[in-house]
Amino acid sequence: MSTERTEIDKLGEFGLIDHLTENFETLNASTILSIGDDAAVIDHFGKQTVITTDLLIEGVHFDLMYTPLKHLGYKAVVVNLSDIYAMNAQPTQITLSIAFSNRFSLEALEEFYEGVHIACEKYDVDLIGGDTSSSQKGFIISVTALGEVAPDKYIKRNTAESGDLLCVSGDLGAAFLGLTLMEREKKIFIENPQIQPNLENEDYIVGRLLKPEARKDILEILEKQQIVPTAMMDISDGLSSEVLHLCKQSNLGCRIYEEKIPIHESSRAAAFKFGLDPTVCALNGGEDYELIFTMKQSDYDKITLQEEISVIGYMCDKEEGAKLITKGKNLFDITAQGWNAFGK
Amino acid sequence: MSTERTEIDKLGEFGLIDHLTENFETLNASTILSIGDDAAVIDHFGKQTVITTDLLIEGVHFDLMYTPLKHLGYKAVVVNLSDIYAMNAQPTQITLSIAFSNRFSLEALEEFYEGVHIACEKYDVDLIGGDTSSSQKGFIISVTALGEVAPDKYIKRNTAESGDLLCVSGDLGAAFLGLTLMEREKKIFIENPQIQPNLENEDYIVGRLLKPEARKDILEILEKQQIVPTAMMDISDGLSSEVLHLCKQSNLGCRIYEEKIPIHESSRAAAFKFGLDPTVCALNGGEDYELIFTMKQSDYDKITLQEEISVIGYMCDKEEGAKLITKGKNLFDITAQGWNAFGK
Repeated sequence: MSTERTEIDKLGEFGLIDHLTENFETLNASTILSIGDDAAVIDHFGKQTVITTDLLIEGVHFDLMYTPLKHLGYKAVVVNLSDIYAMNAQPTQITLSIAFSNRFSLEALEEFYEGVHIACEKYDVDLIGGDTSSSQKGFIISVTALGEVAPDKYIKRNTAESGDLLCVSGDLGAAFLGLTLMEREKKIFIENPQIQPNLENEDYIVGRLLKPEARKDILEILEKQQIVPTAMMDISDGLSSEVLHLCKQSNLGCRIYEEKIPIHESSRAAAFKFGLDPTVCALNGGEDYELIFTMKQSDYDKITLQEEISVIGYMCDKEEGAKLITKGKNLFDITAQGWNAFGK
Repeated sequence: MSTERTEIDKLGEFGLIDHLTENFETLNASTILSIGDDAAVIDHFGKQTVITTDLLIEGVHFDLMYTPLKHLGYKAVVVNLSDIYAMNAQPTQITLSIAFSNRFSLEALEEFYEGVHIACEKYDVDLIGGDTSSSQKGFIISVTALGEVAPDKYIKRNTAESGDLLCVSGDLGAAFLGLTLMEREKKIFIENPQIQPNLENEDYIVGRLLKPEARKDILEILEKQQIVPTAMMDISDGLSSEVLHLCKQSNLGCRIYEEKIPIHESSRAAAFKFGLDPTVCALNGGEDYELIFTMKQSDYDKITLQEEISVIGYMCDKEEGAKLITKGKNLFDITAQGWNAFGK
């Protein structure tokens, strides 16, 4: 972060927005009118719009002690785009509102917006509006993302069928292990500020926590292979929680094979170091932002060579329940122990 | 508010959303898929979409000591719809995200959502998504509103022309006077809780503060009279601030006649009681949510009988500046002293 400090109130609200967004260029033809009026205007050219929104609150969703503001800006955009991709849509626009206390300088906000800008450019998304305000405590971020999809080509959660294969992208549990590591290092630092954080060989799990990506590439693979998932969603609260959503909304049960759950070797190493079961981290850890989807068994041959997609099980009748088949061939009920914002 | 108290974490996040939104029915054909998936889906049938967003934070934008939660829910929706109408568009959908500390019970959130529901029904808007979260302090509300407009029929701020008439709807300054009254009563109550608030004969200004309306009816009048404003915006930060936006964005100056600024008789009485100048309240007080627009002089005859629209002046060349012509025929520069979220 820059060492300069400029107080925000020198600019005023509108000067601040102008300043922070001056480098943002319009990337989408559908963006007719952007920042600077009562509202933005979007044309759709016959497409349908997909819209999602997330609220991120300091102390609840992120800790600025180990989250660089640039990464936070990037992540705030990406987690919303992940929801758009999970509908089989392409993100096109976002609105971004922030509120911050007077401990934030202009330079700090610039860092945050730089991350937002990098994400917008990487994913071809336009920032078209928002709101800035003061807060009594901490940093508050609200992002709404819009995307477009050909009429009726969006993919819901409630359309999986019994017998469909259950697939996930990438690997799971890494973001949770990154969080565990950062919380551990924070505790050590608070107890003894002389000790420097030890993040050696932990690039992977830390990166998965601080700079997640939305799986645009998975949609491209699916399209290229002419696979249309029967249901899809993103994994933000842990595999258990999400698969139970798929089951509940599709009125089905499922079987997941523990040995098929994709876990990165760095995650396994970190779990071992922390004395955690990597499968439990994958099932219950949040913020992986991978995609989970179901597809017809007849599509199986199309993905056998796709390293980024793992078949982890299948959907079955509701009466059979949602169960994990362990490496030891035992059956356990899948229960949602995912991140709960209201937990005590 | 109900006297029962149910803790939120009994329901969990998804149970909470289901519970709070169970009475919301879809009103717009364009709402294809609503709450319950990664994102909502909207069809546009050849229309363009208008989108706006606002962040409302306890202690900054509202004070729960004198703001009933039902009114707050209503107002959180209405202030966003006002921005949609200000674009000459019809609101169709909103997303609503809230965060709250554990001092809020389920019954309190139900009150809030009841207000949201009433506003949605009154303005024919669908609640299609959102996010709920805990907060470390206070109540945080983020609303994003979408509206639709026939292609290229939206009205911006930068298209006024020199010689155009400057018009406002309704009356101004009342919400600020309502706020002044409530802050005064709060102070009296804190100093001596025995004293009951004295709001007698103050229904109008209190109502304008706590339950503002968006001026859908003005758009109907304009359409009926076949008036197309040359520029338009809503008045949320006070007349001075907004008219300066119109001038700056349209690269013009303006003249406003003090005697033409519409001020309700209840506002005048309240201003007198508080020792305030009603014109200053109208110029600098925020949250009136009236519309300000410019129109061609040739349309003047069409609005002379419209009680809800006042011609307060005209646009002129930039070099002539933005000035108020007082009742005493003096000229004063108009300066923005509107509500500033970053002020000290």
